Amino acid sequence: MTDQRRADGSLRHLLTLDGLTRDEIEALLDRAQHYVRRLDEAPPRSRALAGVTVANLFGEPSTRTRMSFELAALRLGADVVNLEVQLSSRVKGESMLDTVFTLEAMHLDVLVVRESEVGVPAHVAAHLNSAVSVLSAGEAHVSHPTQGLLDALTILQHRGQCETLRVAIVGDIRHSRVARSAWHALRTLGVGELRLVGPPALLPADSEFAGCPRFTDMDEGIRGADVVMMLRIQRERFTDTTIPAGDEYFARFGLTPGRLALAAPKALVMHPQPMNRGVEIDSAVADGPQSVIRQQVSNGVAVRMAVLETLALRPREQRRN
Amino acid sequence: MTDQRRADGSLRHLLTLDGLTRDEIEALLDRAQHYVRRLDEAPPRSRALAGVTVANLFGEPSTRTRMSFELAALRLGADVVNLEVQLSSRVKGESMLDTVFTLEAMHLDVLVVRESEVGVPAHVAAHLNSAVSVLSAGEAHVSHPTQGLLDALTILQHRGQCETLRVAIVGDIRHSRVARSAWHALRTLGVGELRLVGPPALLPADSEFAGCPRFTDMDEGIRGADVVMMLRIQRERFTDTTIPAGDEYFARFGLTPGRLALAAPKALVMHPQPMNRGVEIDSAVADGPQSVIRQQVSNGVAVRMAVLETLALRPREQRRN
Amino acid sequence: MTDQRRADGSLRHLLTLDGLTRDEIEALLDRAQHYVRRLDEAPPRSRALAGVTVANLFGEPSTRTRMSFELAALRLGADVVNLEVQLSSRVKGESMLDTVFTLEAMHLDVLVVRESEVGVPAHVAAHLNSAVSVLSAGEAHVSHPTQGLLDALTILQHRGQCETLRVAIVGDIRHSRVARSAWHALRTLGVGELRLVGPPALLPADSEFAGCPRFTDMDEGIRGADVVMMLRIQRERFTDTTIPAGDEYFARFGLTPGRLALAAPKALVMHPQPMNRGVEIDSAVADGPQSVIRQQVSNGVAVRMAVLETLALRPREQRRN
Repeated sequence: MTDQRRADGSLRHLLTLDGLTRDEIEALLDRAQHYVRRLDEAPPRSRALAGVTVANLFGEPSTRTRMSFELAALRLGADVVNLEVQLSSRVKGESMLDTVFTLEAMHLDVLVVRESEVGVPAHVAAHLNSAVSVLSAGEAHVSHPTQGLLDALTILQHRGQCETLRVAIVGDIRHSRVARSAWHALRTLGVGELRLVGPPALLPADSEFAGCPRFTDMDEGIRGADVVMMLRIQRERFTDTTIPAGDEYFARFGLTPGRLALAAPKALVMHPQPMNRGVEIDSAVADGPQSVIRQQVSNGVAVRMAVLETLALRPREQRRN
Repeated sequence: MTDQRRADGSLRHLLTLDGLTRDEIEALLDRAQHYVRRLDEAPPRSRALAGVTVANLFGEPSTRTRMSFELAALRLGADVVNLEVQLSSRVKGESMLDTVFTLEAMHLDVLVVRESEVGVPAHVAAHLNSAVSVLSAGEAHVSHPTQGLLDALTILQHRGQCETLRVAIVGDIRHSRVARSAWHALRTLGVGELRLVGPPALLPADSEFAGCPRFTDMDEGIRGADVVMMLRIQRERFTDTTIPAGDEYFARFGLTPGRLALAAPKALVMHPQPMNRGVEIDSAVADGPQSVIRQQVSNGVAVRMAVLETLALRPREQRRN
Repeated sequence: MTDQRRADGSLRHLLTLDGLTRDEIEALLDRAQHYVRRLDEAPPRSRALAGVTVANLFGEPSTRTRMSFELAALRLGADVVNLEVQLSSRVKGESMLDTVFTLEAMHLDVLVVRESEVGVPAHVAAHLNSAVSVLSAGEAHVSHPTQGLLDALTILQHRGQCETLRVAIVGDIRHSRVARSAWHALRTLGVGELRLVGPPALLPADSEFAGCPRFTDMDEGIRGADVVMMLRIQRERFTDTTIPAGDEYFARFGLTPGRLALAAPKALVMHPQPMNRGVEIDSAVADGPQSVIRQQVSNGVAVRMAVLETLALRPREQRRN
């Protein structure tokens, strides 16, 4: 695994939450909490990253995650440039590393990278010679660290801790970077229990999520849960005939008010968005009093501010390996 | 109709000019005039909207209207993010309102929305719970409020008032949000007469533009007019065989120097752009001494500064419903 | 040729280096050097262009050259807007000049234009009436002035002068704006010798590059050269059967360590990027100790800062023709 830290132990890259210490995660969450504001308050503003340049490298122009990173950088006073590029796909026959070295030569400070291919962010991070940081904005099915942090932050805001909590993750866990990063964060924070709930074909390999109980019956899986994290199900999964499709999927794994009643009283309902209403979640639940889904979005900007600041704040000359 | 005002009567959204009072329109135009500069002067700069975030939601990346809004926001010191999204088309199967709630949760202040479907901006405005303002940048054929304001401003700069003026709008009025917003603005400002000129199939339904005389002969329609507002004709209209096409359209409804001579001396020539030269307007007129077409563009930025400032300037905590 | 200067002799546009005096080029390079920083230093920051608006007009969203211009403008404190538009292709049936006049009316100060059609930037520059500057970011095969400057700057940083130097340009010179702008810059700076090396079909017409020796054998062409500038070969050239393709091209015109040994000791290796590794250049050379390819990228931002500042720095009222 790529070391995400500098020689002095400080965090240089954030590619995965796997391997971060509890102290590191808690420091990021504390800092993020510092940037949380109510909807009727103005968003936080700082000039902490004035002079720092952040590049968003996303394959498509209009993802809301890109905008969340862009807002986080702007509100810290950084310059932000957006480049529509998927590093793993060669552009004009150019090699991926040439693109990266070019960005480095332009004095960019943080590369925010969304990647569909496993290992690309780490490969990039390993080849950068200077002070540039790589911040993953989602890597294939393996990692989405800022999502894991915002999920943890949302839970802590409501429950204060997670040691006594039973958290159920429901849906397509096998292909989910959201689930993996949530697991990395919550495990490190000492979560009471993390349950994996979904049809057998969508549960992860046995070698993953060590010690997490698995359920193929949703009623059992969410019974007594303090937090229910729903995942988005991609419609293309339904081409696998062992996976219940459409109404059948909703009947067996959709979160309805009736089913939510099986969870603990006032259990939190979470979803990383975008939601398939009527497929994995009922609108009455998504918009109901137990939903913290919009709060997750707000926390996302705060978490990204905290991470950007942590990676880029030290003077450039101190940021070298 | 959605109320565009807050409980205290101040303007929160701008979706249409229909229903604004004369005082409200005049206040916006006065403020816009404050931001008008000659071409050889530097553009106005202010920090009035520092800390405010404006999102441009346009379906295509490169419309010049998007750039006009972006410049207006930047010159007021706001942060601007561009998102290529057509709200009415579901993105990744996500519901429109989920997209909007996500933007709200990220603490955006103004959503500048260009929409091809009727009613979407009002629907969005009606569902936002917080201080977010919606500013229409063009809604289907029904409304383009900043265009209506810039047209009114351009006329007032040259004539001082519009009560004594005869304004002729020529072309595809039936499908034109430009014509409708011009009507809303000019009617409220007490325009002397607004004439509708075009082939029968392109005149609006009888229920619209109450009291405006209609002409299917252009010579009659522009005779003595103080202002001639030409509209862009979409080439796809020519598939309707009742509408004269190409040269025939130009011969009957194109604004030529000869025809312009029928209007009042020094009548103003306007066009919202982009122009089809040689189809609805002759280059000698578009670039001639009576044309104020480029001035309309300059006024567009000033008007958008005034509107953004009006919607977003009050402290966030006072902006709630 | 369009005059790129104002009545007072100062530079208003930069469309080509052809016709600039040695003093003008040296002044731009001196200023660029002022903005050069080592990779472990923070990039330069200034507010020199605060209040100035730069528009990047590129046909595609994600070119790295666009980003280099964007960073240069941001680091001078300018506002930057990106418009995906190819001026020579009519947008919505709009004439090119109408687009340009619209941008002018919005009080833009510098239009950075990348164009695939010859003569468009000059045509635009000739029709702008106000203080707007046009800065070419690459025009068909004829000109890429900031590239020529950054190439010259890179050579001067290593050699101090170019009067005693033999520079070999290798590859598809016929279709290369990079080669032409390098020639304009180096010729004016008094380069000792500029050699043109490539297959006959890719050498320029005899009327161009007056006095430059031509070589169709690469070993001969680079023997004793102090600088080897490799050009990118477009794969579509290989459809011309007189041009060696693929491995054959590499065997005859690829820069390998063995071949580089024929050049002068410590000869500089340059490439404008993106590189086709294994087609025109071997990775051992591209990444080797004589390569200054990444330094070219860094110099690119510095050169663009110098040019933007030179074109736009004077007060707007003084910038008129």
